[in-house]
Amino acid sequence: MTGLEEGARDDGVSVEDFKAVFRRHAGGVAVVTALGPDGPIGFTATSVISLSVDPAYLAFSVNAHSSALPVIEIADSVVVNVLSADQAAVADRFASRTQDRFAGPEIRVLPTGDVVLTGSTGWVQGRIEQRVHVGNSLLVVVRALTAGLGQHTWPLVYVDRTYHRLGEDTRLG
Amino acid sequence: MTGLEEGARDDGVSVEDFKAVFRRHAGGVAVVTALGPDGPIGFTATSVISLSVDPAYLAFSVNAHSSALPVIEIADSVVVNVLSADQAAVADRFASRTQDRFAGPEIRVLPTGDVVLTGSTGWVQGRIEQRVHVGNSLLVVVRALTAGLGQHTWPLVYVDRTYHRLGEDTRLG
Repeated sequence: MTGLEEGARDDGVSVEDFKAVFRRHAGGVAVVTALGPDGPIGFTATSVISLSVDPAYLAFSVNAHSSALPVIEIADSVVVNVLSADQAAVADRFASRTQDRFAGPEIRVLPTGDVVLTGSTGWVQGRIEQRVHVGNSLLVVVRALTAGLGQHTWPLVYVDRTYHRLGEDTRLG
Repeated sequence: MTGLEEGARDDGVSVEDFKAVFRRHAGGVAVVTALGPDGPIGFTATSVISLSVDPAYLAFSVNAHSSALPVIEIADSVVVNVLSADQAAVADRFASRTQDRFAGPEIRVLPTGDVVLTGSTGWVQGRIEQRVHVGNSLLVVVRALTAGLGQHTWPLVYVDRTYHRLGEDTRLG
């Protein structure tokens, strides 16, 4: 254990120290989509977690500076698309300033109007039930209503600002 | 997109369908520790996310059936230890029914009394600020106060009920 300040500070850890630890924390990569007044919006998220299985709930967070925030603040329904290891370009597109993010990947529209990215390993559509404002972020709790699986099974992973793949060769034990 | 029921159900997605999607979602692996009335407790979590950087907040969830829940319900302070790719055995230990989980890995005690696993890639100690009961789970929001880095840089990843490693050879692009 080296390098970082370890004295307890009432005003919190430094931005640099906090970032340094979370750069080493792996995250599955998803694109969250929702319907806004001007059509579908979507953004890349590495903060999706399964909260509860029965009943089924998930959560994700959105940065206060995200262009998606105004829609997520008012949307009833969202889709979490779990990206596959061959969708790094999709992750980049939905994390970029591209205006027309949906022009690239193949999509499918659910009966609810929600947009699914068909190349994903799987997706969950659900209803936003809680919004918790935390620091510089909005934490969103979603009741899962429908789900589907794609053909690709290995997920995309993000660590240290880089995308990684998983496969049979990375399995431990 | 095949196989799973896609009709919207007011009562939510089936347990099986929800699990099938999240088995394909990768998660970084952490051990969360806290001080209980009978000494330190710890449990393996694949639900740790960075919520906000400035101010620094993170979140994790605990299952209602976890033996750690009673302590997390009342603890003021927790440590999130981000496990390294060579700590699969530590992840197993803190997910098992072993009573004496701290007898194995090398630990260090912070001035706050909190326990850090020294083989981790990094750790964050913080103060629990919010507890949100969601379905069958407790979602915990933590204000980060101190942090440290370990010597190992590659994290442990969990997908489809199996641990995986990351490395230079898994980098995309």
